[in-house]
Amino acid sequence: MTGRTFASDNNSGVHPAVLEAIARANEGHVHAYGDDPYTQDAIAVLRRHFGDDAAIWFVFNGTGANVTALSSVMRPFNAVICADTAHINTDECGAPERFTGSKLIDLPSGDAKLTPEQVRGAVRGVGVEHHVQPRVLSLTQSTEYGTVYTPEELRALADTAHAEGLLVHVDGARISNAAAALGCTLAEITRDVGVDVLSLGGTKNGLLLGEAVVFFDPALVPDFAFVRKQSAQLASKMRFVSAQFSALFEDGLWLHNASHANAMAALLAREAAGLPGVVITQKVEANEVFARVPAEKIAALQAIADFYVWDERTAEVRWVTSWDTTEEDVRGFVAGMREVLGG
Amino acid sequence: MTGRTFASDNNSGVHPAVLEAIARANEGHVHAYGDDPYTQDAIAVLRRHFGDDAAIWFVFNGTGANVTALSSVMRPFNAVICADTAHINTDECGAPERFTGSKLIDLPSGDAKLTPEQVRGAVRGVGVEHHVQPRVLSLTQSTEYGTVYTPEELRALADTAHAEGLLVHVDGARISNAAAALGCTLAEITRDVGVDVLSLGGTKNGLLLGEAVVFFDPALVPDFAFVRKQSAQLASKMRFVSAQFSALFEDGLWLHNASHANAMAALLAREAAGLPGVVITQKVEANEVFARVPAEKIAALQAIADFYVWDERTAEVRWVTSWDTTEEDVRGFVAGMREVLGG
Amino acid sequence: MTGRTFASDNNSGVHPAVLEAIARANEGHVHAYGDDPYTQDAIAVLRRHFGDDAAIWFVFNGTGANVTALSSVMRPFNAVICADTAHINTDECGAPERFTGSKLIDLPSGDAKLTPEQVRGAVRGVGVEHHVQPRVLSLTQSTEYGTVYTPEELRALADTAHAEGLLVHVDGARISNAAAALGCTLAEITRDVGVDVLSLGGTKNGLLLGEAVVFFDPALVPDFAFVRKQSAQLASKMRFVSAQFSALFEDGLWLHNASHANAMAALLAREAAGLPGVVITQKVEANEVFARVPAEKIAALQAIADFYVWDERTAEVRWVTSWDTTEEDVRGFVAGMREVLGG
Amino acid sequence: MTGRTFASDNNSGVHPAVLEAIARANEGHVHAYGDDPYTQDAIAVLRRHFGDDAAIWFVFNGTGANVTALSSVMRPFNAVICADTAHINTDECGAPERFTGSKLIDLPSGDAKLTPEQVRGAVRGVGVEHHVQPRVLSLTQSTEYGTVYTPEELRALADTAHAEGLLVHVDGARISNAAAALGCTLAEITRDVGVDVLSLGGTKNGLLLGEAVVFFDPALVPDFAFVRKQSAQLASKMRFVSAQFSALFEDGLWLHNASHANAMAALLAREAAGLPGVVITQKVEANEVFARVPAEKIAALQAIADFYVWDERTAEVRWVTSWDTTEEDVRGFVAGMREVLGG
Repeated sequence: MTGRTFASDNNSGVHPAVLEAIARANEGHVHAYGDDPYTQDAIAVLRRHFGDDAAIWFVFNGTGANVTALSSVMRPFNAVICADTAHINTDECGAPERFTGSKLIDLPSGDAKLTPEQVRGAVRGVGVEHHVQPRVLSLTQSTEYGTVYTPEELRALADTAHAEGLLVHVDGARISNAAAALGCTLAEITRDVGVDVLSLGGTKNGLLLGEAVVFFDPALVPDFAFVRKQSAQLASKMRFVSAQFSALFEDGLWLHNASHANAMAALLAREAAGLPGVVITQKVEANEVFARVPAEKIAALQAIADFYVWDERTAEVRWVTSWDTTEEDVRGFVAGMREVLGG
Repeated sequence: MTGRTFASDNNSGVHPAVLEAIARANEGHVHAYGDDPYTQDAIAVLRRHFGDDAAIWFVFNGTGANVTALSSVMRPFNAVICADTAHINTDECGAPERFTGSKLIDLPSGDAKLTPEQVRGAVRGVGVEHHVQPRVLSLTQSTEYGTVYTPEELRALADTAHAEGLLVHVDGARISNAAAALGCTLAEITRDVGVDVLSLGGTKNGLLLGEAVVFFDPALVPDFAFVRKQSAQLASKMRFVSAQFSALFEDGLWLHNASHANAMAALLAREAAGLPGVVITQKVEANEVFARVPAEKIAALQAIADFYVWDERTAEVRWVTSWDTTEEDVRGFVAGMREVLGG
Repeated sequence: MTGRTFASDNNSGVHPAVLEAIARANEGHVHAYGDDPYTQDAIAVLRRHFGDDAAIWFVFNGTGANVTALSSVMRPFNAVICADTAHINTDECGAPERFTGSKLIDLPSGDAKLTPEQVRGAVRGVGVEHHVQPRVLSLTQSTEYGTVYTPEELRALADTAHAEGLLVHVDGARISNAAAALGCTLAEITRDVGVDVLSLGGTKNGLLLGEAVVFFDPALVPDFAFVRKQSAQLASKMRFVSAQFSALFEDGLWLHNASHANAMAALLAREAAGLPGVVITQKVEANEVFARVPAEKIAALQAIADFYVWDERTAEVRWVTSWDTTEEDVRGFVAGMREVLGG
Repeated sequence: MTGRTFASDNNSGVHPAVLEAIARANEGHVHAYGDDPYTQDAIAVLRRHFGDDAAIWFVFNGTGANVTALSSVMRPFNAVICADTAHINTDECGAPERFTGSKLIDLPSGDAKLTPEQVRGAVRGVGVEHHVQPRVLSLTQSTEYGTVYTPEELRALADTAHAEGLLVHVDGARISNAAAALGCTLAEITRDVGVDVLSLGGTKNGLLLGEAVVFFDPALVPDFAFVRKQSAQLASKMRFVSAQFSALFEDGLWLHNASHANAMAALLAREAAGLPGVVITQKVEANEVFARVPAEKIAALQAIADFYVWDERTAEVRWVTSWDTTEEDVRGFVAGMREVLGG
C-alpha cells in the first residue's frame, strides 16, 4: 500500500525539505490568519517569481484556489470558458458552479488544449440578457492530458480572450511541470503572456497541502481576503501553509521536483512505447503518460503498480509520475508490464 | 514575535507528537482523498470516542466544518438558531449564509449560552411560507466566552430542540476544553445528550490544521462526501490530516492539551483577579479569561503579551491560553501587568 | 369572502384604470421582454418622477424587487443593515440571504424606523476579513408599522450611510403612501435625499402585479438586465406589466390611491381610538393602524372583517386600509367593533 | 409594431377569455398569496387534467417554474441532464445553475430530442465524490426545435431515467402544443408516461402571465411552498394568476389555442416549402418552423414580418406561430416572401 504508484501525484508524500520548513516554523506563537513573518516571507519569495505587485493568497487546495479565483472576478451571470476535460469541469463535483452561481462553457479538445478560434466561437450572446456572459477563459497548464501550452500559444489565447472582454485564469495545479517542460520561468508562462489570475499548485509538487491564488494586477480583486474567508479557505495557523511555499519556491526545489517528475514520465513513455500492445496516445510533455493498452491485461498491469483507467471503452490508461518517483520505480513497472504483455 | 501570547489559541504551534505523526505518515505512496490506511485508522480512533456507527469526515478548518455540517442538513429556506456571539454568526464573514443560503437567528446571551426557553421562543412561523423555517440549533462548546454547557444543560437543550423539530449542531472548536473542564468523555457531552452533528476541533488543541465533522446517526447525511468535495473541503493528501487526528485522539493527548490550557486560564484568572482595576467578567471554565481592565492601560498591557480587546466601549479584554502556554508565560504576564497596574 | 377586509393591501383588487390599460395594451404583437412601446412609455412616465437618467426595471413582486436590487450592488461578503421588522428580514423566507449569499444585520426599533446612530453603531469590523462588510442600508418607507420617515430623517440617514461607505436602498412597497402622507413628490423622498436604489411598489397600490427597481445613478449597476433575468424576474409579455405602471403613474392615480388609503387609516384610527379597550400603539401616518385590543374579543372582531394579530402576547393587531377601502367599510367595521366591545 | 409577427409566441397578446377571467376575479377582497377561492378553483381545474393528488403551484414565468422545480428536487452536488438546445441551458442566463448551485450536463441533439442511450451514457461517476451526481433528466416538450416526443419515446426515456436513479422533469412551456400535435391529453404525455414534475406553460398559449409547477407525487417535495417563496415566485394577488389558468384549462381553450397555433405552423411550412431557396430543416410538429433561406434575403424577409435568425452561419431562421396568428397573417407573409424570393 505504501509503494510508489502511477495513479496520481496526489498519492505522493511531502518533500523532506518541506517537512523541515514546517518544523522550523513551529516556534512559539505568531499571529494567526497570515499576519505572521512566515507568510510575509512566502509572499516575498513568490513575488520574486511573479512580480513585486502580484497579490498572493494562500488557500487549502486546488478546488479552493479555482473557486475563489473564479468567483472573485465574476458575477453570477458570467460564465467560464474551459476545455471539457478541465478539472473545474469534471473533477470538482460542481464546486465552480456552486461558488460562482455560474455556468461553465466546456469546449471539446483532443489534447486538452484550447485554441483562439474555439474561444472566439464560444463568446456568444454578448449583451443579450437571456444568455450567460462569458467573463473568464480558464486554461489548465500543464493540461489534464499532460500536454503543455507554449508561451506563444498562451499569448495568442490571452490576446484573444482580452479582445473578447475575458480575463484569463490558469489552473496551475501542475504549472511547475509545464515551466520545467518548457524551460521557462513561471512568469514567462503567466504574467508575461497576459494571464490575469493563477491557481498556483503546490500539493502535487511536494507540499503537504497548499495552493496559492496569484493576481498579477492587485487592483483586479482588492477584496479577495473576504472571498477567501467566506469560502472557508483561510487557514488559522497560516504559517504552516506559508512556510511550505517558501521551502518550495525560494530556491529551485519547485523546478527540481517538477523536472524530475517530467523526466520520469518521459522515461516511462519511452520504455512503455516499445511494449506489445501499448500505444502512447498523447504527447508526453509534463508528468503524465496516456496510453492504450490491451484491455484484458489492465487488471494484471494494475497489480504491478496502481494507475487509473481513463476511458474504459478504449482501454486508455493514465500514468502519473511524481517528484518522488524513482528511475527504479519506472524500470520496475516497465519490467513488470513486459512480463504481462510479452515481447 | 514568536513569544507566546494570550491573543488566540490559533497563535499556538503544533504539538511535537502531531508533527511526528505527520512525518511517520510520509512514507511512499497511498491513495489520495482519504482512501488510505492513515485515514481508516483515524476514523477508528475517533469511533472509540464517538461510537462505532459515527460518520466521521475530515475537513480543513473550523469554518469548513461548520458550513458543511450545517448546509448538509438544511434546505435554503431553513434557519439556524444560535447565540449572537456564535463564531458562525460573527466571525466567519457570512460563510454560513453563503453555503446554506439561509438565515441565522441569533439570540442575545450574557454568557454566550442559550437556554431552552430562548430556543422555544425563537421557533416561530413554522409552516408559514413567508418565514424561514428553523431547522438547526447550533451551540458552541466551550462558548466564545469560555463558558461551558453542562451535560444536563445540553440534554435539556437537545430535548427542546428535538421537540421543536430541530437538529442539534455543536461547534466544538474547543470541545476538548469543555470535556476537560467537565471531567466528561467527548461522547458524554455530544452523542449521549442528543447532539446530532459535531464540528470537532483539532487546530486550536495542537494540530497543524484539521477539523472533523461527526454525525452520530450516519443515515442523517448519507451523501456528505459530495457536500465536502463541492465545498472545497476535501484534502488530496488526506493522510497528513488524518494522521494528526490519530496522534491527538488515540491516547490522551487531546485531554492533556486541553486540561493544560484550562489550568493555565484558571491560573491566569486567579492571579489577575487580584490586580488593581481588573475585574473578571465571565466564569472561567475553559481556556479563556474575559476581564475588564483600565482602558488607558490596555496598550501597555498588550506590550507585555498580545491579546484582543473584546469590547472597546467597556475596556473588556480576552485572554486565551493554549496547549503550549506555560506557567512561566502566565506568571510573567501577571507580573508585567502588576507593574503596569500597580498594587 | 369577497368583502373588503383590513388584513392586507395585498387583499385588494386591481384599480379599473389599470385593468383598462392592460386591455388597451392587448393589441397585436409586440416584442417580448420589454423591447416594446408600452415599456418605453412606462419608463418615460417614471423618469418624469425620478429623473431622466434613472435606470428603471420592472419585476414581478416586492421580494423580487428587493433581492435583485440588493444582490446587484453587493458581493456575497457584504451585509445589509435593516430594521428587525423589515420585510426583507422577516417576511421573505430568507430570499435576501439566498440571492445575496449575505447576512442581514437587523437592528431593533420600536417604531420600525432606524436612526443614524444605530446605523453608525452597526458598521463594525470594516476591513477585517472575519466579518461581513456592511454595504447597504435598507430602509422601508412607509415602514412595516405604518410610520413614515421625513425627508430630513432620510437625508440624515443617507448622509450617515454614505459617510460609512454604504449605499441606501428603500423598500418602497408602500412608498406612495409615504409620499402622500408627507405631501412630497416621490423624488423628494428618494433621489433628492440620497437614496441610491428603490424598490418601487405597485401591487399594493392598485396594480394587478408589478414592482420596479429604480437606480438613481444608472452607472451603479450597468448590468442589471442580467441580474433580473438570472433571478427569474423578467416577464416575457412585459407590456402587460409596463402598461400598469403607466396607468398608475402617468397622471395622479398613484397619489389618489395612496392618499385615499391613508385617509381611511386615519379615519379608522380616529374612530377606533374611542372604543373601550382599544389603544392605538403606533403613529398612524400611512395606511396601517396598530392597536392593542382586548385579547378575548379578537376572534369576534375578526368575524366582522378579517385582520392580522401582530403579536399574540400583547394582543396587538394590525389593520391595513387599501386604495379600495371605502368610508362605509371603515364605519361598518367600527360599528361592529363597538357592538363587540361595548361603549 | 403591433402587427403579428413570427418572432415568438411571447410576442402575442392575451386571449380575450383570459382577460375576462381576470376582470371577473376583480371583486372585493380575498386573501393574498393563494388562500383564495380562485386559486382553489384553478387547482381543481388542473387536477382534472393531472390527477386528484397532483401538487400544483403557480409561479410567474417559465424560468421561475424551471428553477423552482429543479432546485426543489436537487442538492447542489446533483446535476441535470438536458439537450444542449434546452431553454434551461441556453436561454435563462444561468438561472438554473444559480438557483440549484449545480451543473447542467448538456447533450447534443440534431432535433432537440434526447434518446435513452444518450441518457444512459451521461450517467457517469455515480457514487464518486469528485463528480456531480446526475439527479434529473429534463426534457422539453414540444422542443426548442418544434419537434415532439411521442408518448412511447417519453415512456422509454422515463423508464431509463428511473432505472438510473433520475427524476424526470418536463419543461412544458409549449406542452399544450405537443398534446395538440399528438392528440393526447396532458396526462398522457406527463403523468401516464412517468414524468415526475412538469413546468406547465401558460404564457405562450394565451395567458397574460403565469406558469405552474406540477408534481405528480405530492410527497416528492412536501415543502415546495417555501422554495417558491424564497425564490421570489409567490404572487401576492394570486387570484389574478390563478383565474387565468381556470380560463385556459377549464374548458378546451388550451387545446383550441395550441391546435390553432400548430395548424398555422403547418400551413406556413407547407406554403414556404415551395418558395425558391427555402428548405425546411426540422419536422414541423408543433408551432415552430425552422428553415434555411437565402442569407442575403433575410433582412428583406424580416421587413415583411419579424422573425429570428437561429444560426447566422447557416442562414437558418425560426418562425413561430401563436394562438392569435391568423391564416391571413400566414398567407400574407408567404406572399411577401414570394415577392422577395421570386418564384
